[in-house]
Amino acid sequence: MDFSLTTLGTASARPTTGRYPSAHSLTVGGRLFLIDCGEGAQMLLAKYKLPFSRIDNIFISHLHGDHVFGLYGLLSTMDMVGRASALHIYAPGDIESMVDTFYREFGKVRYEIVIHKVKCSEPLLLESFKNLEVYAFPLRHRVETYGYLFKEKERVIKPNIENYIPFKPRAFAYCTDTAPFPQLAGWIKGADLIYHEATYASDLKALSRTTAHSTSEDAARVAVEAGAQKLVLGHFSSRYKNLDLLLQEARNIFAETYLAEEGMKFDVPKIRVNQIK
Amino acid sequence: MDFSLTTLGTASARPTTGRYPSAHSLTVGGRLFLIDCGEGAQMLLAKYKLPFSRIDNIFISHLHGDHVFGLYGLLSTMDMVGRASALHIYAPGDIESMVDTFYREFGKVRYEIVIHKVKCSEPLLLESFKNLEVYAFPLRHRVETYGYLFKEKERVIKPNIENYIPFKPRAFAYCTDTAPFPQLAGWIKGADLIYHEATYASDLKALSRTTAHSTSEDAARVAVEAGAQKLVLGHFSSRYKNLDLLLQEARNIFAETYLAEEGMKFDVPKIRVNQIK
Repeated sequence: MDFSLTTLGTASARPTTGRYPSAHSLTVGGRLFLIDCGEGAQMLLAKYKLPFSRIDNIFISHLHGDHVFGLYGLLSTMDMVGRASALHIYAPGDIESMVDTFYREFGKVRYEIVIHKVKCSEPLLLESFKNLEVYAFPLRHRVETYGYLFKEKERVIKPNIENYIPFKPRAFAYCTDTAPFPQLAGWIKGADLIYHEATYASDLKALSRTTAHSTSEDAARVAVEAGAQKLVLGHFSSRYKNLDLLLQEARNIFAETYLAEEGMKFDVPKIRVNQIK
Repeated sequence: MDFSLTTLGTASARPTTGRYPSAHSLTVGGRLFLIDCGEGAQMLLAKYKLPFSRIDNIFISHLHGDHVFGLYGLLSTMDMVGRASALHIYAPGDIESMVDTFYREFGKVRYEIVIHKVKCSEPLLLESFKNLEVYAFPLRHRVETYGYLFKEKERVIKPNIENYIPFKPRAFAYCTDTAPFPQLAGWIKGADLIYHEATYASDLKALSRTTAHSTSEDAARVAVEAGAQKLVLGHFSSRYKNLDLLLQEARNIFAETYLAEEGMKFDVPKIRVNQIK
């Protein structure tokens, strides 16, 4: 079963040429989970051949514009292409009001939109899908913000398969936008793949604290403490035309760090429990 | 003085790979007039080096999502980059409510947004700038929709310049979304450049009538009757991967027809009145 993250939008609040606002797609088997929906998300999904029809669930970290301004366009286009099945949106804050406004200003869509309001002060099981559980956990930002942990379920092994060595369930953690805080790494412990914001390099650590963001070093420390296999950095400040410094500073702490780019795919491979290093 | 149209978004309601929702920039001298603001407009402006700082006026044809869903992102980013001067938005329908929602959900910006509600049943002088007049005129669509005519002012010639041959004032007409109707060509008579929607080829003429859109032939007839120099087609249905048929059908009626593409610039040259053919 495929388990992979495609980074669609890697900019922070101000997009740049080539860097779009936050949007990500997690593919688990045939399902696509859209995580944040910045402006342009529907165009990026189309560009990278991620069909809208496989999206039944959208997870929104917080209601800052650069994480949600693509929602209205996507909801409209889903209607236009004849969507019939319900769409679930998981989000904090006043997401109902945002969707109500959409209905009021632009007309009702013909499919059902089910709002799941996210609210928790520590990790909470949000939804249990066939092969996957999704947890929300609070982040530290200027408005109410949540990260999401996507965890494969343990397979139930049929007793007639002898010597079967099970696969390790895979997990992906999404952490943006946030200042660093002590509990985070523990909450996502064992995640194979972590997407963590890295708005700034270490030279702007002070600014990262006043704006409630992270440096790439902060992100790398989370990856180390959580015991991750791979770290993907994103949500880059528009001031960095070249991201080498952010990457290098993170790799000095956690070697398996990569920079997100629009359309880049990060696979989490299946490994058997006896192959875990 | 530069007088040119840059087409930024050429899709109709459903964007495709490479075709964005409606957005256009008219450059007149140093000013940029943004006409419609579909999703992705701010990224396209940045990509094609059209600075936000030169936009003081945005003209919206109508409040269908594919013409306005880029507005929230652009308004936010303008604030983020420190805009101080007032921004004027000309639009029909309940644009106030859309902007109020933006304030309520995403916080007030630090510059002034001045709403100019467009409402007229025949051409109306909307605004007189230093070198330019802008007229609104009603179109025929499923919701209240206006086209815009941008007309250079006649220069006042100083009497001490002997044998001065004045330049013909230039004009650009923006016509989308609309079904064809008899008065349109007369209202934009003499426009050098016309942007006209061509959602469909002639095979879907019946559909164009039920959806209140135009075929490329309809657009070409307007250009002929208005005596235009050049016609730019846009707002293409996503069903046309190749637009040759739309172009050919229009050129059979009006030879100087061109297909809009993202980032394409159409100059309206300055010509002296004695050079008019």
